[in-house]
Amino acid sequence: MIIMNTDATKEQIDQVVAEIKKCGLRADVSKGEYRSVIGLIGDERQVDFAHLAALPGVKEAIGVETPYKLISREYAELFEGVNEHSVIKVGNINIGGGEPVFIAGPCAIEGKEQLLRIAEGIKKAGAHILRGGVFKPRSSVHSFQGLGANGQEGAREALGWLREAGRKFEMPVVTEIRGETQVDLVAEYVDILQIGARNMYDQDLLAKVGMKGKPILFKRHFGAGIEEFLSFAEYIAAEGNRQIILCERGIIPIGKGKSYTRYTLDLAAIPAIQKETHLPIIADPSHGTGRRDLIFSMSCAAIAAGADGLMIEVHDSPEEALVDGQQMITPDELKVVIDTCQRIHKQISR
Amino acid sequence: MIIMNTDATKEQIDQVVAEIKKCGLRADVSKGEYRSVIGLIGDERQVDFAHLAALPGVKEAIGVETPYKLISREYAELFEGVNEHSVIKVGNINIGGGEPVFIAGPCAIEGKEQLLRIAEGIKKAGAHILRGGVFKPRSSVHSFQGLGANGQEGAREALGWLREAGRKFEMPVVTEIRGETQVDLVAEYVDILQIGARNMYDQDLLAKVGMKGKPILFKRHFGAGIEEFLSFAEYIAAEGNRQIILCERGIIPIGKGKSYTRYTLDLAAIPAIQKETHLPIIADPSHGTGRRDLIFSMSCAAIAAGADGLMIEVHDSPEEALVDGQQMITPDELKVVIDTCQRIHKQISR
Amino acid sequence: MIIMNTDATKEQIDQVVAEIKKCGLRADVSKGEYRSVIGLIGDERQVDFAHLAALPGVKEAIGVETPYKLISREYAELFEGVNEHSVIKVGNINIGGGEPVFIAGPCAIEGKEQLLRIAEGIKKAGAHILRGGVFKPRSSVHSFQGLGANGQEGAREALGWLREAGRKFEMPVVTEIRGETQVDLVAEYVDILQIGARNMYDQDLLAKVGMKGKPILFKRHFGAGIEEFLSFAEYIAAEGNRQIILCERGIIPIGKGKSYTRYTLDLAAIPAIQKETHLPIIADPSHGTGRRDLIFSMSCAAIAAGADGLMIEVHDSPEEALVDGQQMITPDELKVVIDTCQRIHKQISR
Amino acid sequence: MIIMNTDATKEQIDQVVAEIKKCGLRADVSKGEYRSVIGLIGDERQVDFAHLAALPGVKEAIGVETPYKLISREYAELFEGVNEHSVIKVGNINIGGGEPVFIAGPCAIEGKEQLLRIAEGIKKAGAHILRGGVFKPRSSVHSFQGLGANGQEGAREALGWLREAGRKFEMPVVTEIRGETQVDLVAEYVDILQIGARNMYDQDLLAKVGMKGKPILFKRHFGAGIEEFLSFAEYIAAEGNRQIILCERGIIPIGKGKSYTRYTLDLAAIPAIQKETHLPIIADPSHGTGRRDLIFSMSCAAIAAGADGLMIEVHDSPEEALVDGQQMITPDELKVVIDTCQRIHKQISR
Repeated sequence: MIIMNTDATKEQIDQVVAEIKKCGLRADVSKGEYRSVIGLIGDERQVDFAHLAALPGVKEAIGVETPYKLISREYAELFEGVNEHSVIKVGNINIGGGEPVFIAGPCAIEGKEQLLRIAEGIKKAGAHILRGGVFKPRSSVHSFQGLGANGQEGAREALGWLREAGRKFEMPVVTEIRGETQVDLVAEYVDILQIGARNMYDQDLLAKVGMKGKPILFKRHFGAGIEEFLSFAEYIAAEGNRQIILCERGIIPIGKGKSYTRYTLDLAAIPAIQKETHLPIIADPSHGTGRRDLIFSMSCAAIAAGADGLMIEVHDSPEEALVDGQQMITPDELKVVIDTCQRIHKQISR
Repeated sequence: MIIMNTDATKEQIDQVVAEIKKCGLRADVSKGEYRSVIGLIGDERQVDFAHLAALPGVKEAIGVETPYKLISREYAELFEGVNEHSVIKVGNINIGGGEPVFIAGPCAIEGKEQLLRIAEGIKKAGAHILRGGVFKPRSSVHSFQGLGANGQEGAREALGWLREAGRKFEMPVVTEIRGETQVDLVAEYVDILQIGARNMYDQDLLAKVGMKGKPILFKRHFGAGIEEFLSFAEYIAAEGNRQIILCERGIIPIGKGKSYTRYTLDLAAIPAIQKETHLPIIADPSHGTGRRDLIFSMSCAAIAAGADGLMIEVHDSPEEALVDGQQMITPDELKVVIDTCQRIHKQISR
Repeated sequence: MIIMNTDATKEQIDQVVAEIKKCGLRADVSKGEYRSVIGLIGDERQVDFAHLAALPGVKEAIGVETPYKLISREYAELFEGVNEHSVIKVGNINIGGGEPVFIAGPCAIEGKEQLLRIAEGIKKAGAHILRGGVFKPRSSVHSFQGLGANGQEGAREALGWLREAGRKFEMPVVTEIRGETQVDLVAEYVDILQIGARNMYDQDLLAKVGMKGKPILFKRHFGAGIEEFLSFAEYIAAEGNRQIILCERGIIPIGKGKSYTRYTLDLAAIPAIQKETHLPIIADPSHGTGRRDLIFSMSCAAIAAGADGLMIEVHDSPEEALVDGQQMITPDELKVVIDTCQRIHKQISR
Repeated sequence: MIIMNTDATKEQIDQVVAEIKKCGLRADVSKGEYRSVIGLIGDERQVDFAHLAALPGVKEAIGVETPYKLISREYAELFEGVNEHSVIKVGNINIGGGEPVFIAGPCAIEGKEQLLRIAEGIKKAGAHILRGGVFKPRSSVHSFQGLGANGQEGAREALGWLREAGRKFEMPVVTEIRGETQVDLVAEYVDILQIGARNMYDQDLLAKVGMKGKPILFKRHFGAGIEEFLSFAEYIAAEGNRQIILCERGIIPIGKGKSYTRYTLDLAAIPAIQKETHLPIIADPSHGTGRRDLIFSMSCAAIAAGADGLMIEVHDSPEEALVDGQQMITPDELKVVIDTCQRIHKQISR
């Protein structure tokens, strides 16, 4: 990181950036109230820090060995003083550091009427953001892949319904992007771009969605350690996009024999990650457990652990859902979840 | 399982038990308000159920294929009607189905004064049961193994302090048993016998502690699936002891790279297990995270997930503790944990 | 699957394919010596099998519930009789079912001279195929990402060297594709397209590389079970490309404390997978262990387990490599590995 | 470790040992050809090394921070010069550093005739040591627990058959000990005492079997990292018993969905462990895979990885076995395994 003097000029900053680029790296310039800090993106072994430190306007030039630094608390503190939590604004919703935010909706969008019915239901239940899958990542090519599988037109139609439902019920909307060719299309329609667990390691896709400048909902892969998760979030940040909402959605279960839960929801990751980064982090108890009858308990637990919100799959008739019916709850059940979570949040934040 | 008629006589029950023993199995007789049910312990393939069904007084004889049945909800329901939760009484403390119970104390007992100071501290903080390790299971033979390592005398002295501290501050006491030769000794001094995670699979030890007739605090091994955990609890139940307090304390973390938590606290196991068995289940956020700074969050989360209590390591000066200092909190911190957990419990149980 | 009569006409086959498409699925037509078999690709719940069975020329129409069927032994046997192993031809090299094939080369291409030197070395050591990374997937955006990171031009230059080295030393070449925008470019230059472990779940990328009609080297993700691995290989097969070389490269290590190997090489997966599919499977002991000093042993073990080949990272001065030096061996060491593996192969195949 | 001068007297050694005991630790005295080395067993933080270094006859006094040191290569090298492999002699069988040793026999002893038939079969097939379970550790109290479950008498009878079969066919015998009360009994009858995977963490049992002075076959727990495995082997060594045969038998499988193997046989652990310790290490492909049809491949792979031997479950009619029939092979199949493994061993050791 290059810490500039408080009175460093734009020209001095530009010179530092130019020198960094000469070494084959990219530069991330963060302007704080008092000073600017320049983060290096790339292989720092290529850089002569003594040379950078001697440039005009530079206060300090330090090599940092961690795989995530742009999103770290340390970095934010350098130029902004105490920075407890970033707040990501989507419409009039604030994510991070305050009241928990509830994202809800069907796993997959199946039709317009279905989506409108569910959107109305979750709005009444108190949800803030509407989700709905168009491009579904599936373990089997022989499973229903979402309406996005019906070509460009099918995708546009489903995305249009999502936008319409969001506008009608005054909720920002989010959907998942699974491949690079979907980025521009999806970004036209939704407020938040979701990268699912299976794509967490897909660095080319991360760079591409990062560049769109929209908030990203970024899910942890089920085989990823916390360091890996944050290191791949850094790929998004490296594109100048710090509007990242992290999401814990369960890791591979340990132990032989019958599985009682589809994944192991790693709730300790929530406070552990909050100590590393100021980015908000939410939990997904639907995928994390794979069981309707555990969603209430794990929602309460996630909020009690300090999660900044929840993402919950909701369907008006879960038993008829094309995908993941066994892990969806009804809007009425969602209302109980939200009410209880809000009361729990009050207990931990007083 | 053999379900007897409501008017079955003692002689008829005895005859069924005798027939079961002839096949090389053991029998567990549970007398409900209306009828008796006889559980078979052992390899049911040796048994001719048609023959048993034909005995006088027998209503039904059913083979059950699950590895845990004596502790299952189904079994309890057969003879006792609705049986939402077992309640285990230790002194005037009730564990299970009501207010959460807080077990606290040092990882290892280091001396009498230390123990009394901590006992006083946790009592004031609102804890119900005092813990303190005498026989410490350790990964290295070169680590401090607890005062129990100082021979029979050292063990008796430390156990005596534990009993004294418990009496003085009116709390039942619990300590861990690591080997078969410690069972009788420990049972003389404490109210609850603890089997630690590393001994979960030690079926001979389980049978031996089961026979003492005292409540058992039984911890899940960090490599065990839920089915295994319950199947080994069944070894205790098979000795006629149904006073089993289960404890989730974290499983092996997944993911390469730096570990942020010592284990992964599997909180979804709590409601999942509560759907299988009526036994109470608590959580241990101290071992489950290995980090002082995560204990508050994970305590709140465990109670929100429905845990019947918590076991927390407390020390008056954690940085000087001989064992596990990095995961112990002070009595003052414990008070905040207990108060917040009690408020959270009210939110989920209304 | 739709099994056609031995005398079914092209028109009859076309009609079945058309009916399948009407249901929203795709069809995979395999023509065997005696009969054709049509595999359904997509959600079979949308299909009325009784209707298909009644079409002219159809012998049998069966729903198959497994997530991988196009690559399964059962499917191949339907139309080709006994089909022990598929053989994938690349230049004059045969992969599968015969002598083990050795793929070697540097983790990342660093320069032309380096590549030519290493290519010469591995050729002399007995290797058959040259590998070299241009687009490197890395856990950190701050690590060296391969020469492919230097824009289109840098990528073309490095890919050109790879093709040149392959031609000069008469070896087919393989390199990894990390994102969709690289597919066309890479396919211009190399004989085998590699999908790395981190992209295993990236179904849009799999479909895109599958369509190129070139052999695919497909690596198992380190968090993937065998069923998932084969189910994602099916995404490639669903594009009509059955030239898939599977690769076991290690799964997430279990167990707390210091890691002795970077991953756990799951060698039992090799014979287990060979019982499910006729596709060849090789092992990568370099990534699988992350340790130069274990490569000899694990290469021998993989061949003894029945692997159809090995992929080994080789560098002429491993200690100076920009990436993964700690897991690369020299050409001289490679020769010992290849010689020993060939002798071991003779022992298991007599 | 305390390294003595080459001319240190017995009195000087005794004085060092006495000083170590004063600190509450134990001492392990190893006499090499040239000098003696004294290992400290226990918490070295209690020891003043400067004080020990100043005692007469002491050359050097060094604190060692690893959890396994008595069994480490470094320790052995201190007093014995190069010490590539320890060789453990059992009857006229040498285990370690030479030809691979084959241990075979039924999972559980079911009767005398069965055992004699199998013993004869494995002897003819080329096996060196006979195994047979009397006390079976089982996940369910409702499964067959071995003839040892029939009280002291049943156990003695089965153990007697095992000894008799061993004598008749001139093979040392090994059986598993599951609890502390079985140690003395079993040691009367068998040549090698086995500690199974489930008891790996049971440090009181390890100390007790260690004291018997007989060779110990010590299996890795399925959730244990390599460091833990070796640290618990150190509990045996701490009792002065260095005759420890390590055994890799598979770790918990990763990955959702259907399991293709019961465990993941971690073959890289074999060479990795051989670099840490001179103790022999064998593999158990029967438990490691849980599948008859994978035993040949994984036996070959383990020997190719450098294993000092194999332990394989054999039954003359596997489909009728009371326990684990799906993972046992016949004596005829064993012969093919042994012959092939011996040929493979020649290839890696020339």
